[in-house]
Amino acid sequence: MHTVDELVTPAALVEARALEENLATMAAALPGERLRPHVKAHKCTELAKRQRAAGHRGFTCATVREVEGMVAAGLGGDLLLANEVLDTRRVGALVADGARVTLAVDSVATVAAAAEGGVREVVIDVNVGLPRCGCAPERAGALARLARERGLDVRGVMGYEGHLMMVQPVEERARLTEDAMKLLLAAHADVGGELVTAGGTGTHALNTWATEIQAGSYALMDTAYGTLGLPFAQALSLLGTVISVTGGDQGWAVADVGLKALGMDHGNPTIPGAAVWYCSDEHVTFAPDAPGSVRVGDRVRVLPAHVDPTVAMHEALYLVDSERVLERWPVDLRGW
Amino acid sequence: MHTVDELVTPAALVEARALEENLATMAAALPGERLRPHVKAHKCTELAKRQRAAGHRGFTCATVREVEGMVAAGLGGDLLLANEVLDTRRVGALVADGARVTLAVDSVATVAAAAEGGVREVVIDVNVGLPRCGCAPERAGALARLARERGLDVRGVMGYEGHLMMVQPVEERARLTEDAMKLLLAAHADVGGELVTAGGTGTHALNTWATEIQAGSYALMDTAYGTLGLPFAQALSLLGTVISVTGGDQGWAVADVGLKALGMDHGNPTIPGAAVWYCSDEHVTFAPDAPGSVRVGDRVRVLPAHVDPTVAMHEALYLVDSERVLERWPVDLRGW
Repeated sequence: MHTVDELVTPAALVEARALEENLATMAAALPGERLRPHVKAHKCTELAKRQRAAGHRGFTCATVREVEGMVAAGLGGDLLLANEVLDTRRVGALVADGARVTLAVDSVATVAAAAEGGVREVVIDVNVGLPRCGCAPERAGALARLARERGLDVRGVMGYEGHLMMVQPVEERARLTEDAMKLLLAAHADVGGELVTAGGTGTHALNTWATEIQAGSYALMDTAYGTLGLPFAQALSLLGTVISVTGGDQGWAVADVGLKALGMDHGNPTIPGAAVWYCSDEHVTFAPDAPGSVRVGDRVRVLPAHVDPTVAMHEALYLVDSERVLERWPVDLRGW
Repeated sequence: MHTVDELVTPAALVEARALEENLATMAAALPGERLRPHVKAHKCTELAKRQRAAGHRGFTCATVREVEGMVAAGLGGDLLLANEVLDTRRVGALVADGARVTLAVDSVATVAAAAEGGVREVVIDVNVGLPRCGCAPERAGALARLARERGLDVRGVMGYEGHLMMVQPVEERARLTEDAMKLLLAAHADVGGELVTAGGTGTHALNTWATEIQAGSYALMDTAYGTLGLPFAQALSLLGTVISVTGGDQGWAVADVGLKALGMDHGNPTIPGAAVWYCSDEHVTFAPDAPGSVRVGDRVRVLPAHVDPTVAMHEALYLVDSERVLERWPVDLRGW
């Protein structure tokens, strides 16, 4: 396989130069342990190896499967499973085999599950404003004491300001991030430990209170993050084949990149030089800006609105230099 | 594995009784060759075998991978790839090996690709109102002539009234379906052949003009189709574990069924007895109708809004009788 023309479509492409620049830009902004890259945004150990080569040795995971896959790939030196888990036996088995996995806990039940499953290290997950997981900040100290009583090492606190990632303008995002992190620092004063882990691509440059940032989307990017003016380029696209064209000034074209190949929770994808009408299972229907400019058999590149679920729908990422295929990277961290 | 409590979550469950009733209800309404079940809605050859056992011998596919998997499972006796394909070599190879695969064509280019790739049988795909694939009805006869000149056997016409599936009330859906099928029958008069293939779950009982209906969603169902009053039960649910509860009257709970486990293009899923607030990658945040009724560790069943992309995110379907796991069926038709 030498050129993208030989790929079966839809295919997930990663522009090598954009990826390299994104990794370098982030490593300059948040070097080494200041960044704990979140693998949920790419689910690909080959890409994680590039992040490690850029200087980041700890990683963030969202699922047990991601943890298992990272350990299997030799990347299990310091993994944070930034999520609550009740079925902790699989994590405990990895820890018993020598992997370092720190688990988020936010309740008596999750502390008990961690201790009983053989997990040794935890962070106290604190709600900093996103209505999801995390204990109330004033509960964090008591949970940390409970965890230590159960023999767990409490490495610190975690608080994800996910509700602030897309806030505009940036000054407002910075102000709200400070408010959220004040809650997390208050909890940290009660909890102790070396870690204050938080943040994401949208707040990576603003969140100066966390000891480490959990950004993931920066590596591949998507059109939603693309609206924020961040210093990262769109590295991911979906290659499609135009399979049908209906002519005329009111005409449209159809490519074989549908909603089974695209995370749709952030809305429609973007096709440069065209207006996207809608997606169905295996199709995107779009109107080219220049009617008549698209022909059956043409290849198009479709930009996803949300990188994380998009990547999770694909078996592989193809690293490309424009038209040339450099490598095939399995998306090996899918499933649960 | 004996009970659903032992499953890793999220897990896709199929209630055996609901599935059986759905298959039986459809087989009574559209027996034998009156239905050509669409496998894109379940991507599972074990489920397709149940549909064959219910009397349907031909199947509809949306992707080459689906065709390949159906042939490998011994279900390649009469497959319709109801989509335009430019890279026809994989289909041609299956045909050369003895599978019967009929391909949709809607242009000079797709006719040429079919002939050059070794495809022997086609249907002329006709636009009946959905802005997607399909030639204009008045072009169908000329395309059929071209296909026959290229040595292809033209089995008839196809026209998917997908834009009408959700139209309410049903009388309006019936009226518009008739209008759409008049276009298809006019094309059929010019094309000839034994097949007039069309329809879906939403029009299966209304579309009396097609010789066969391509319904797929009826087997597992989803909450969108559930609003139509069709005689099919919700067989598919996602099993989740409650991993976090924030108490109080304004409280909420979080289960580990997120948008990487749910097709989101039709909106949020439904949790009986609760209001779903939002989904993130690995979480659904919801408010139980009875505050305090949900605890960490509880299992919940989440009903997807759109079955097709939901199933495509899972490695397996678990056939269950309420709490008991009967079988594990691989979702073996994923990818492209």
